[in-house]
Amino acid sequence: MIQQYPSRLLEKAVQQFSSLPGIGRKTALRLVLHLLRQDTADVELFTDAIATMKREVRFCRCCYNISDTDLCPICADQHRDASTVCVVENIQDVMAIENTQQFNGLYHVLGGLISPMDGIGPSDLEIDSLVHRVAEGTIREVILALSSTMEGDTTNFYIFRKLSPYDVSISVIARGIAVGGELEYTDEVTLGRSILNRTPFSGT
Amino acid sequence: MIQQYPSRLLEKAVQQFSSLPGIGRKTALRLVLHLLRQDTADVELFTDAIATMKREVRFCRCCYNISDTDLCPICADQHRDASTVCVVENIQDVMAIENTQQFNGLYHVLGGLISPMDGIGPSDLEIDSLVHRVAEGTIREVILALSSTMEGDTTNFYIFRKLSPYDVSISVIARGIAVGGELEYTDEVTLGRSILNRTPFSGT
Repeated sequence: MIQQYPSRLLEKAVQQFSSLPGIGRKTALRLVLHLLRQDTADVELFTDAIATMKREVRFCRCCYNISDTDLCPICADQHRDASTVCVVENIQDVMAIENTQQFNGLYHVLGGLISPMDGIGPSDLEIDSLVHRVAEGTIREVILALSSTMEGDTTNFYIFRKLSPYDVSISVIARGIAVGGELEYTDEVTLGRSILNRTPFSGT
Repeated sequence: MIQQYPSRLLEKAVQQFSSLPGIGRKTALRLVLHLLRQDTADVELFTDAIATMKREVRFCRCCYNISDTDLCPICADQHRDASTVCVVENIQDVMAIENTQQFNGLYHVLGGLISPMDGIGPSDLEIDSLVHRVAEGTIREVILALSSTMEGDTTNFYIFRKLSPYDVSISVIARGIAVGGELEYTDEVTLGRSILNRTPFSGT
């Protein structure tokens, strides 16, 4: 379909929006026309929020989570258990685990997973910095909380090897049937794993 | 669900994105983190395109279509038939009709439809300016190409009454079964209309 935009300025804005992931030309046009209907001050709030974030946001020097300060609020929190570190792929994963309210340790954000197909090697990720943290000696447990995919497994294995010289216990988050999930609809690999990795029944 | 953002700057940017229509918090976060991974120059291109568009885009003084110039390219085009004006709700409709390549006249963009429920009255729309254009005397036909909804019908009727003092023929785009549509699945109101508004069979 030919899309004739009546304005070059409009077209440019639509092009920029449609470069975002999951935003097609039609959605982009809808969003741009919405912004065009807003007050100039509101559009400035929008563009300023993005520009300011891009300019000023930092990554925590300890865990590489996104942060407004040199040390992120989680790493700076004295009430958290600094001897346990949970290794995750990205910032969303930190937020997801924080939302469970089941973890009181610190994090380490890798910024991705090892993926030779996408040209992402260990040096592109925050793995060396994890090894440095562990080498300091205060960390007793590293929990690997990566996706259960080939990339996640590769990364788990790589980190495991890198950390093996150090006196630290390494664990992996449990893989099994989802809470509320029915056996019948669970794939067989997951089901097989959940039998192998069965845990003692605590009666609760 | 509690959403704890690790950064106020991030949170602000997410809030701004999720104020756009059809963008939820999760999508907004994904888009913001995508922008955060881009080069600063690319993010500037993004914010500049929006800011520039908002600052510089205008509405054609004749048809109120969006434009970079005082008179939009369609109104300025000498090869188009200035005696026929197609009345549409918004800019997307102009683009949709242009894409059909079946119309060589000019447009008039109302900027909405009369909707008492949403507090939109005739004075909020470009209806007076349409009447002025017709009063100038060069327009011979006004085609009403509004949505087939209550708001569209109300607006059609209002414009029809406003234009009745003038020597101009007023038509409405055909309503009937969609090309490629099956009778069986066409709603009965549309089907009824398509029988009432049948056209002579031309054999093509």
